[in-house]
Amino acid sequence: MKTRILSILRNTDGHISGEKLSDELGITRSAVWKHINSLKEDGYEIDSVRNKGYRLIKSPDIPDSSIIKAGLETELIGSTVIAMKTVDSTNEEVKRLAAEGAREGLTVVSAEQTAGKGRFSRSWSSGNDGGIYFSFLLRPELPPADIASITLAAGYAVCLAIREFTGLDARIKWPNDIIIGRRKLCGILTEMTAQSDRIDHVIVGIGINVNNHSFPEEISGKATSLYLEAGKEFDRNALLSCVLNMLDKVITRFLISLSIDDIEHFKSLCVTMGKTVKISRAGKEISGEACSITAAGELIIRTEDNTELVINSGEVTVQGIY
Amino acid sequence: MKTRILSILRNTDGHISGEKLSDELGITRSAVWKHINSLKEDGYEIDSVRNKGYRLIKSPDIPDSSIIKAGLETELIGSTVIAMKTVDSTNEEVKRLAAEGAREGLTVVSAEQTAGKGRFSRSWSSGNDGGIYFSFLLRPELPPADIASITLAAGYAVCLAIREFTGLDARIKWPNDIIIGRRKLCGILTEMTAQSDRIDHVIVGIGINVNNHSFPEEISGKATSLYLEAGKEFDRNALLSCVLNMLDKVITRFLISLSIDDIEHFKSLCVTMGKTVKISRAGKEISGEACSITAAGELIIRTEDNTELVINSGEVTVQGIY
Repeated sequence: MKTRILSILRNTDGHISGEKLSDELGITRSAVWKHINSLKEDGYEIDSVRNKGYRLIKSPDIPDSSIIKAGLETELIGSTVIAMKTVDSTNEEVKRLAAEGAREGLTVVSAEQTAGKGRFSRSWSSGNDGGIYFSFLLRPELPPADIASITLAAGYAVCLAIREFTGLDARIKWPNDIIIGRRKLCGILTEMTAQSDRIDHVIVGIGINVNNHSFPEEISGKATSLYLEAGKEFDRNALLSCVLNMLDKVITRFLISLSIDDIEHFKSLCVTMGKTVKISRAGKEISGEACSITAAGELIIRTEDNTELVINSGEVTVQGIY
Repeated sequence: MKTRILSILRNTDGHISGEKLSDELGITRSAVWKHINSLKEDGYEIDSVRNKGYRLIKSPDIPDSSIIKAGLETELIGSTVIAMKTVDSTNEEVKRLAAEGAREGLTVVSAEQTAGKGRFSRSWSSGNDGGIYFSFLLRPELPPADIASITLAAGYAVCLAIREFTGLDARIKWPNDIIIGRRKLCGILTEMTAQSDRIDHVIVGIGINVNNHSFPEEISGKATSLYLEAGKEFDRNALLSCVLNMLDKVITRFLISLSIDDIEHFKSLCVTMGKTVKISRAGKEISGEACSITAAGELIIRTEDNTELVINSGEVTVQGIY
């Protein structure tokens, strides 16, 4: 009911009377009054004027599916948007809904994760701290090996969207970390279920540090936020619409095939290029200079003895970056 | 308690007295007598002689974890064996146990699946009809693309085991169907969950037509069983131990790397080689002559205009074979 009231308030120029609201919603005027008060408690600024009614002045900076949807120009991602105040993990929520048959494009967003997950089973700090956490569902008819391209495309799209929305110099650390300067801004965790020759579904989970004013001590040297970099806060719903639009455009394109322009643009944004990198792989450590990215998104490194290796997995450390 | 009684009966030469059984198990003699009767109802032939006690003469042909385990010489597969009379799908059962943290090598076997699954979301006929259905859990530290090798290795191992156990001329239809003559004997469904650069777990599900005397009309021209080919029944528990032993040996080897000998042997058993095949792939149909298998297990086909294509997924039809 609160969502319906918000939707009416958003679509009304000026004030709307309590009587009209109660007629449209089929509830009593005192019920309208109760819901308006509850919205105010949620952080919505609502002007109430005797004989004129109610007017929405400002929405709080919390995930709001109707605001996010209103900003979307997507074909696939965000077919359904579910906004939550808190969740164990947006990937887990999408996984549960996927098991119930959720449609491709389903997107779950939350201001907080109580059990956020990072790569290599690490936990990912995601308290209610100004960050935004979201996951979306894809069901591409592709072989399992193509998951690497989807992950790469996701990182590339988020980097482009952040550059566009904030003007900040966000960059990619291969394969899919987004950094500003030497610090991490965004993490991506892609999970899939597949049969031997076909993906069943892919869940892409993304966490972006937006309005975080500080970080826990143990990661404060390695993490940054849009707020810390720009010195101002950003509207998380508007940012998310922008990111989802870019993800939709880039991933739809990547699912067909990677263009040379995309790869070149990706490389130009990728701080890993030209750097000495260390790769840990099944317990062993390989070191070399990152010299290119293949059309499939793999990293090519040149080792000391001038051998070129194609790296498609494992953890990559770039000297000097978090 | 029935499992413990069976275990004692199997490890006793000749008869064991009811008194000794009741002492060893810590139950009354009348409880022993009740369990023995229940075992007889399950199909076990147990000789009871006054003053001598009980002796196991013959076990029924139903999956029995202690018999299967006794026949194992494996490092990994069958670390735990769970035998069931019936289950929805052995893959689903392993999936549930994997979610609860089951150890690598867990194997679930059933005489019947009420909701067996085939590739491309087809159902797989698996009533209580003489077939054997089993799934095992792997947690390899490999990138998701390697699932294709695991599936290939599984088919190859089952083919080798059936040849060894029965002497029948079982062959492989690429990638992993086992056939005799023109008819299908065994199906394999591999399912995985993974992150972008690492497999979380793989479940390999295998159904073998063993003592099936007939098939439903709609598949009778396409399916065969060991019984129909050899004219006699086989002990399913002993066959399964043999198959698990071979799977363990081959998959452990494949997880390290495919040897040239393995690939050559695989090719010699693969009926697809040299045949005209049709591949359906994302709605399109490609036709050509199957001319080789790569070290990664992909099929190479030569099309009419002499182009060589590497095929790693999609459904393959071989002319003249079911």
